[in-house]
Amino acid sequence: MSQATNQSWGGRFSEPTDAFVERFTASVNFDQRLARQDIQGSIAHATMLARVGVLTDDERDAIITGLSEIKGEIERGEFDWSVPLEDVHMNIEARLTEKIGITGKKLHTGRSRNDQVATDIRLFMRDEIDVIEAELVRLREGMIELADREAETIMPGFTHLQTAQPVTFGHHLLAWQEMLARDHERLLDCRKRVNVMPLGAAALAGTTYPIDRHVTAELLGFERPAENSLDAVSDRDFAIEFTSFASILLMHLSRMSEELVLWTSAQFDFIDLPDRFCTGSSIMPQKKNPDVPELVRGKTGRIYGHLMSLLTLMKSQPLAYNKDNQEDKEPLFDAVDTVRDCLKAFADMVPAIEPKKASMLEAARRGFSTATDLADYLVRKGVAFRDAHEIVGQSVAYGLKTEKDLSEMTLDELKQFSDTIEQDVFEVLTLEGSVAARNHIGGTAPDQVRAAAQRARDSLASMQGAGQ
Amino acid sequence: MSQATNQSWGGRFSEPTDAFVERFTASVNFDQRLARQDIQGSIAHATMLARVGVLTDDERDAIITGLSEIKGEIERGEFDWSVPLEDVHMNIEARLTEKIGITGKKLHTGRSRNDQVATDIRLFMRDEIDVIEAELVRLREGMIELADREAETIMPGFTHLQTAQPVTFGHHLLAWQEMLARDHERLLDCRKRVNVMPLGAAALAGTTYPIDRHVTAELLGFERPAENSLDAVSDRDFAIEFTSFASILLMHLSRMSEELVLWTSAQFDFIDLPDRFCTGSSIMPQKKNPDVPELVRGKTGRIYGHLMSLLTLMKSQPLAYNKDNQEDKEPLFDAVDTVRDCLKAFADMVPAIEPKKASMLEAARRGFSTATDLADYLVRKGVAFRDAHEIVGQSVAYGLKTEKDLSEMTLDELKQFSDTIEQDVFEVLTLEGSVAARNHIGGTAPDQVRAAAQRARDSLASMQGAGQ
Amino acid sequence: MSQATNQSWGGRFSEPTDAFVERFTASVNFDQRLARQDIQGSIAHATMLARVGVLTDDERDAIITGLSEIKGEIERGEFDWSVPLEDVHMNIEARLTEKIGITGKKLHTGRSRNDQVATDIRLFMRDEIDVIEAELVRLREGMIELADREAETIMPGFTHLQTAQPVTFGHHLLAWQEMLARDHERLLDCRKRVNVMPLGAAALAGTTYPIDRHVTAELLGFERPAENSLDAVSDRDFAIEFTSFASILLMHLSRMSEELVLWTSAQFDFIDLPDRFCTGSSIMPQKKNPDVPELVRGKTGRIYGHLMSLLTLMKSQPLAYNKDNQEDKEPLFDAVDTVRDCLKAFADMVPAIEPKKASMLEAARRGFSTATDLADYLVRKGVAFRDAHEIVGQSVAYGLKTEKDLSEMTLDELKQFSDTIEQDVFEVLTLEGSVAARNHIGGTAPDQVRAAAQRARDSLASMQGAGQ
Amino acid sequence: MSQATNQSWGGRFSEPTDAFVERFTASVNFDQRLARQDIQGSIAHATMLARVGVLTDDERDAIITGLSEIKGEIERGEFDWSVPLEDVHMNIEARLTEKIGITGKKLHTGRSRNDQVATDIRLFMRDEIDVIEAELVRLREGMIELADREAETIMPGFTHLQTAQPVTFGHHLLAWQEMLARDHERLLDCRKRVNVMPLGAAALAGTTYPIDRHVTAELLGFERPAENSLDAVSDRDFAIEFTSFASILLMHLSRMSEELVLWTSAQFDFIDLPDRFCTGSSIMPQKKNPDVPELVRGKTGRIYGHLMSLLTLMKSQPLAYNKDNQEDKEPLFDAVDTVRDCLKAFADMVPAIEPKKASMLEAARRGFSTATDLADYLVRKGVAFRDAHEIVGQSVAYGLKTEKDLSEMTLDELKQFSDTIEQDVFEVLTLEGSVAARNHIGGTAPDQVRAAAQRARDSLASMQGAGQ
Repeated sequence: MSQATNQSWGGRFSEPTDAFVERFTASVNFDQRLARQDIQGSIAHATMLARVGVLTDDERDAIITGLSEIKGEIERGEFDWSVPLEDVHMNIEARLTEKIGITGKKLHTGRSRNDQVATDIRLFMRDEIDVIEAELVRLREGMIELADREAETIMPGFTHLQTAQPVTFGHHLLAWQEMLARDHERLLDCRKRVNVMPLGAAALAGTTYPIDRHVTAELLGFERPAENSLDAVSDRDFAIEFTSFASILLMHLSRMSEELVLWTSAQFDFIDLPDRFCTGSSIMPQKKNPDVPELVRGKTGRIYGHLMSLLTLMKSQPLAYNKDNQEDKEPLFDAVDTVRDCLKAFADMVPAIEPKKASMLEAARRGFSTATDLADYLVRKGVAFRDAHEIVGQSVAYGLKTEKDLSEMTLDELKQFSDTIEQDVFEVLTLEGSVAARNHIGGTAPDQVRAAAQRARDSLASMQGAGQ
Repeated sequence: MSQATNQSWGGRFSEPTDAFVERFTASVNFDQRLARQDIQGSIAHATMLARVGVLTDDERDAIITGLSEIKGEIERGEFDWSVPLEDVHMNIEARLTEKIGITGKKLHTGRSRNDQVATDIRLFMRDEIDVIEAELVRLREGMIELADREAETIMPGFTHLQTAQPVTFGHHLLAWQEMLARDHERLLDCRKRVNVMPLGAAALAGTTYPIDRHVTAELLGFERPAENSLDAVSDRDFAIEFTSFASILLMHLSRMSEELVLWTSAQFDFIDLPDRFCTGSSIMPQKKNPDVPELVRGKTGRIYGHLMSLLTLMKSQPLAYNKDNQEDKEPLFDAVDTVRDCLKAFADMVPAIEPKKASMLEAARRGFSTATDLADYLVRKGVAFRDAHEIVGQSVAYGLKTEKDLSEMTLDELKQFSDTIEQDVFEVLTLEGSVAARNHIGGTAPDQVRAAAQRARDSLASMQGAGQ
Repeated sequence: MSQATNQSWGGRFSEPTDAFVERFTASVNFDQRLARQDIQGSIAHATMLARVGVLTDDERDAIITGLSEIKGEIERGEFDWSVPLEDVHMNIEARLTEKIGITGKKLHTGRSRNDQVATDIRLFMRDEIDVIEAELVRLREGMIELADREAETIMPGFTHLQTAQPVTFGHHLLAWQEMLARDHERLLDCRKRVNVMPLGAAALAGTTYPIDRHVTAELLGFERPAENSLDAVSDRDFAIEFTSFASILLMHLSRMSEELVLWTSAQFDFIDLPDRFCTGSSIMPQKKNPDVPELVRGKTGRIYGHLMSLLTLMKSQPLAYNKDNQEDKEPLFDAVDTVRDCLKAFADMVPAIEPKKASMLEAARRGFSTATDLADYLVRKGVAFRDAHEIVGQSVAYGLKTEKDLSEMTLDELKQFSDTIEQDVFEVLTLEGSVAARNHIGGTAPDQVRAAAQRARDSLASMQGAGQ
Repeated sequence: MSQATNQSWGGRFSEPTDAFVERFTASVNFDQRLARQDIQGSIAHATMLARVGVLTDDERDAIITGLSEIKGEIERGEFDWSVPLEDVHMNIEARLTEKIGITGKKLHTGRSRNDQVATDIRLFMRDEIDVIEAELVRLREGMIELADREAETIMPGFTHLQTAQPVTFGHHLLAWQEMLARDHERLLDCRKRVNVMPLGAAALAGTTYPIDRHVTAELLGFERPAENSLDAVSDRDFAIEFTSFASILLMHLSRMSEELVLWTSAQFDFIDLPDRFCTGSSIMPQKKNPDVPELVRGKTGRIYGHLMSLLTLMKSQPLAYNKDNQEDKEPLFDAVDTVRDCLKAFADMVPAIEPKKASMLEAARRGFSTATDLADYLVRKGVAFRDAHEIVGQSVAYGLKTEKDLSEMTLDELKQFSDTIEQDVFEVLTLEGSVAARNHIGGTAPDQVRAAAQRARDSLASMQGAGQ
């Protein structure tokens, strides 16, 4: 056991910790990331302790000054982290005592590492959620603007990856945007439950010191103190809920990524991604690979894994704090970083997507995408839907054989399948007509797309930062 | 391929579906569970179609009458479900046409199975969420009342499953209740996002018929129509979000179950569960097994699995609807049933828990649970926290050797470790004193527990049914 | 509590089981699927008990006759399953006693439901693994034959879904086949660990009766009795290992499915799937959807979910048997069914894939797929690889601008980028030349593909049924 | 884009990579861990290239010397890793070219980063599997020796965490050991499938250079070259299979950990863990927390998460290599480290477990653990099993009321429930008699435990290193 060891629990122990065990159980290598929040929490705690008379004003000031200096040391990379001191909390406390003497030890009055770490993570998550929200807003904005711009750009809509009906590219982008709007809501819902203060729960049962938790909560910007001390030190719901939000978000990004990869393939050829979002091959000089969407798609697994990790972690744990919980941080930190980076990459990339309109239009023209319009036309002329469906099915079979799209057949050819078809059929067989006819809320008509973009803009404006 | 086959898409096809494939791809064996909602949605759709003039009032009435009769047939178990007809939608439509002729086919005007099934599931989920909420409320109520009753019952509080500090049983129960309060919030947040109507999205792009989606949404009690047709038919976020809610809830129940299993063991012996929640052994006549909590703990895996299943299902799916999505129903149905049954079992069982107070008290007495109180006592007498911790550590080491708890030592024995200790130490070494001293919001003092129970009651009253 | 209740553990109990709890904790609704194996195990157990003198020969014969009759009743659907009797074991035992009197009760001598159910599941899994292996073999065979047939069919090989280098369709199919070969190995490895007998472990510690576990193991075809009774009743590794095998297999099928879906799209247009593996649309008459691969892709989630479910189930369970374990059956049964059906669907479908050779060839021609061959050509002429890469990069850039593939450029055009290029370059720029040149083990040259198909055939022959 | 950029794919590109994208897509920060294997693979590749005449002997020697020097630089921490150079491969190649000029570039002849990275990871995994196996063997050995030593130590055996029947501590330890024996088998099965060489697959289709893959495979100690180039660069089964092995192993360790945590609680008090495997509390001086088992239990989630991550990653990926696959390394590296550290911690700790024999014995004495023995006694006296079960049930009910264990009752008291009971009953009611009577393979009798320990030793000896 190293010299600078954690003496905080030594009295009962007759043997030092095994060196490997010390390293195995220490968390300082990753939880030092919470240093800023740890100091923020400690300053608020000291302020409260002074207000209720547990610390003198001088003690409080010494503590705050010491912590502020330590914060500077950490930010400047001058802080010497020690594994034998286990974690971020003991490292900072040890340094504080080094600096200001025994008063440093008084900071721990009325709290425990159990409520301290729970408070630190919540402060951290609140900060990170706000950063993530900003990137999410930027991505939503970019998507809405692109959608508005491309409200009339026609592309094939797919079901089962088979050409189904023509839609507009703007409409497709707004489908993506709707996914993100729900993610945004979920993020704000999660933030509400993050923003509750465990501090004061102490080890598990509260403390015998006359603390005022409402004061600390207010100083730290928490909405309220946690209602129950046992729950406060053992609850990691917010970590799971955030990772669950992140899983759904990454699922959405994986779907967008899948489409971006398809669309940049030679076979689809619907869009170009600027070179700066792609990489090449060390062996195949012709390659331009859509690395960013591929990588984001791959990162979906990482996030799902973290969710499963945290759910497994908490399964069957008896109250209150158990050492198992130390395992919450790494998946959470990585989830936060991954979400932020993926959103940033998408927020940069999406507005730079270059639709290849001619290619999209040509693809929509092939594949009998207006077959439904022909059926609807027949129904409007009084044909029963079931018969109309059959007539169009036969027309398509004929088209497959003769390699003609419906709009390329002559009236006589079409009339083979139904006498009801007249010259006016060609209006509904155009892509523009097909798209414009889906003219109701949620439909793909350009006017609807533009109106939907405007509603999305308004909704985004009303949500942005609503949680803060 | 059977006679009564699904002719709805036959025209383009030159070969019938393989018999195994027909069975493999059919969903009617499980999606018939959506029959009630399917009929409810169809009645609203027909009503709207009549209002906008696509159906005559007579057609609408025939459809509604036919559907109502079919509903009766299904409820009475007289409906003959057909696998070749694939799914609940085609089965009902085929029967409707059988009953009312060609008008039955007109019901499908302006919609597709893609938006139909999405609407059915949302209606189903909304219904089930309300049933689940009722059980959750019942469980919360039972827990709060038991907690209030046991506000003074002392038991050991654990961290690391080692005796830490005394708490009250009521306080412990309120920790459980806090978990459920968050689950309740999450359920209501999820319900908001369930309650949005896909109908009118048709296959993927909307429809050319002059539908009025606001009318249908109002008839079905949806808050609003979905904003984007492509998103509406492909979105399964609500299923994932519900399963995510369910995963956190079952995680909580697994923690409670773990404790119930521990507490009924001969080693803990903290509680009795009534025989009606237990089973015995076919070979060991003395056994009384806590089957209900064990089984609920086991069901956690089932729910986590469904969450992972749905997340995997949606990963990388391009828009819009793909056949993969048929796989959403079975995990969702099972999640709904499992959540409802586990909550019901707990809501029945929790109020019937019989604490063995003497045994709990005795356990709290052992294990040096008031060691922290001794340390706090020393600090209040002016000893530095670090020194106090060391003094108590030595006292505990002495207690381990002599097999005496702190409160069982004489003043002289205690004074070996610090002269500061006086006769008044024995007040803080009692369990009652220890518990009562943690007298702040969230602390375990009986007064705080009773106040917290009252706040929980008020909060529950304000939430109950808030989503409906 | 119903009349026909499970009296096997009643003596210690003062109160009947709650009706809902009875239903909640009963397993007979799903574990009746183990009836055949339960009877098979009981017959072997009775035979052994008679051999060691615990039963008389007459008792043994009465038991075997009774069980055989019950088996018939079950197979004919005449057996009346009772929920109050909890599970398949008590249902069969109760019926046996009804038929042959008190001797029926003697069957349970020297065993417990804990080792009985563990034995039943292993017998069941062994049977199902053999059925699954047969389908897997059939699929591998079909794939190998198709690959051999298509050893010369050229298609583009992709990385990052960008055209990379030409490969043959047979080569691609053998890549699929390699995945399945590993799955086959894993299935046989799993079977080894399934084929171990828990029977004789009794409740958890073995039994005081003079049983001979080697006899029972031999009668049931198990390789050996399990080594440790506590482990024998609590081990569910084989269930997890099977589900893990299944997850990797379904992952492979999801990759194949993804490609089949891509290839049947209008954009790729590489293959046709016979109509009997596809379905159509109720609203879009032109659609022919690749339902089978889509559905199999979707079922991947189901299997991953079951794996996670079982892993979660077993996490942190203390020894030996706990009620949690009842939750092992439903995921396992569903995994078995899903694997068998997906393999069957693929084994039927894969040999029926119709490659559209002209379309594949044309796709390979586009996209500069022989760019690497040009670089290799330059290197062979003495150009440094790095410079060659640069030269080809410029040629490709020129090709993109002029819309010419490398093989469509004139010698003069090519010479713009390097004087080293001569007339013989056109040999390496042909697709046939490119493919044939990758002529080493594992390469895509047609001769290599045919040789690999032969090795695959031989290897399959040597593995088939090796576990049985 | 930084100066020292990856020029390997620049020719086709008109715009440098975005700085954030460069960092986002680079892997060098984590894949530098593969440096040793990357160099090992490159040396073998160069050796083979010289043998087939693609490199001269001088070129080969220059490459090998250069790589050996680079290896030294890396080991000494002098190597300057560059993010713009993307990954470990380009960093090493760039440095090699810096050192030996253009010959360095020739090393990449006939390979691609796609087969290179797949080879590196397999070499890495093979190395790590051997390290892991050594720790696993050490743990198994320690467990077997402790079990042998404790073959007669009586403790209660539990089902449903209720006292069931007495077992020996050695028997319990051998149950743990059986779990690990299966893990050992699975690890060796996995190693077989790791030990196959992708090198020579090049980018996806093989290479036009006259490589000899059997030579390279032999040089690198691989069992054989991979059979199919497309599969070779896209296969990550071995990573999933390893993580699946790891998940089952950690599940086992979580079960052992759960029991260790229970056993060190004041309520069970079955064992002591040496102080060096425990930590204390900063606030509660009496605490000695079983941190190592708690943390290992918590790490189960981490491993399950990595498994889910990798399964998700590979789902639905079309062939061959996609950028997604870069995400395979971090979960795999962390799984390897976690498995190794957890095994090391357990291998150190298990032999140091100190059973508290008196406490275990006393616990077995309570709880009617010989009730089954009484039932068996009655059956041997001719009572039907069902009646015997009922008689014992009543005796237990009487014991609960009078607070007497069965062995503490007088003969007269026992005779209340059955006249068949005689003086000789007290022999079967002793714990020693109960345990000794379970005297068959797998049973808990001390002789059986010792014999089982010997078989375990023999089996371990035959497995150890069998894969190498």
